Amino acid sequence: MTAPIEFWFDVISPYAWFAARRIEALAARHGRTVRWRPMLLGVSVMKVMGLRPLMDTPLKGDYVARDLQRTARREGLVLQRDLRAAPMSPLPAARAIAWLDAQARAQAGPVARAVMDGYWLEGAAMDDAARLRPVLAGAGLAPAQIEAALAPEPGSALLRESVAAGLAAGVFGSPTVLIDGEPFWGHDRLDEAERWLATGGW
Amino acid sequence: MTAPIEFWFDVISPYAWFAARRIEALAARHGRTVRWRPMLLGVSVMKVMGLRPLMDTPLKGDYVARDLQRTARREGLVLQRDLRAAPMSPLPAARAIAWLDAQARAQAGPVARAVMDGYWLEGAAMDDAARLRPVLAGAGLAPAQIEAALAPEPGSALLRESVAAGLAAGVFGSPTVLIDGEPFWGHDRLDEAERWLATGGW
Repeated sequence: MTAPIEFWFDVISPYAWFAARRIEALAARHGRTVRWRPMLLGVSVMKVMGLRPLMDTPLKGDYVARDLQRTARREGLVLQRDLRAAPMSPLPAARAIAWLDAQARAQAGPVARAVMDGYWLEGAAMDDAARLRPVLAGAGLAPAQIEAALAPEPGSALLRESVAAGLAAGVFGSPTVLIDGEPFWGHDRLDEAERWLATGGW
Repeated sequence: MTAPIEFWFDVISPYAWFAARRIEALAARHGRTVRWRPMLLGVSVMKVMGLRPLMDTPLKGDYVARDLQRTARREGLVLQRDLRAAPMSPLPAARAIAWLDAQARAQAGPVARAVMDGYWLEGAAMDDAARLRPVLAGAGLAPAQIEAALAPEPGSALLRESVAAGLAAGVFGSPTVLIDGEPFWGHDRLDEAERWLATGGW
């Protein structure tokens, strides 16, 4: 019985969204399941690493905007958000996903996918209870579970624990895939992560 | 007659070295040649983007050290440099490559490859005339050409022009491949760059 692979992501990260669309099938091809783990770029990149947000970094912001549109075109997707606009708050969704990871783990992935699909494909700010309730219901959660997942606590505490666990494991970017502790950072490293799964590493 | 693809690199960039080992064959598979263009991460990343060197960035430095060793193992290579040590000065080699780009373009790639092989595979500081002269001679350059390539001028001016041209084209990272103006940043995007060449883009 092998351990799940860990998929670390910030719900506002577009590269995490691209990877989220592929990760379950990738894991399944190698007999693995996926544990969906929320992190916050605002903590790892801005506080710990001392960097600016990607889109505010000269040159890199322009490249990333172009690259995201190019990646979306290749995948047949149309991004409905202005990449230069301020992002939604990731906190309500990330707290709910941290709660699901603790209490209803099978639903964490479907909820994360639905949040990110709504954000990128519909341009919706998935950052309040009114938006998140139907997502949680759609994933099959009971009303009491939905309210527990959306309550400030224990979601906030669980999210802080998740972010700390990510930092302790060296997770700084979104997405990061951990395979038995081995980190692969970036949507563009999924093929390499899959090669690691297929070969057992090198 | 299609234009060469442009391979932008800093000679001290390990990811550029991995890419340099593949780029000529990749281009040739699609009937393209490669123009080797020197840039300086010290200008783009540190001065223009305002970031610290990769290895000095918390969390990312640790990841990159691990990733470089992992990539080297996969390629059957053994890195002979301490990734945490101060890098050599890229200037003498980069000036020489800028001179070659202007005066003896066919030799720019072989010289760049030899400089990076010496740096990573032998751990040699390829940053003075004594080290660079045999590399230039090995690429078939005549003695007068060798001394011209190693002279402070016009190499310095040509390198400044090259760096400025890179920034104007949006090049900030090493390696970056430009295909008819379309940028692909990172060793881990070579497969995507090749898909772009194979399909004509999307």
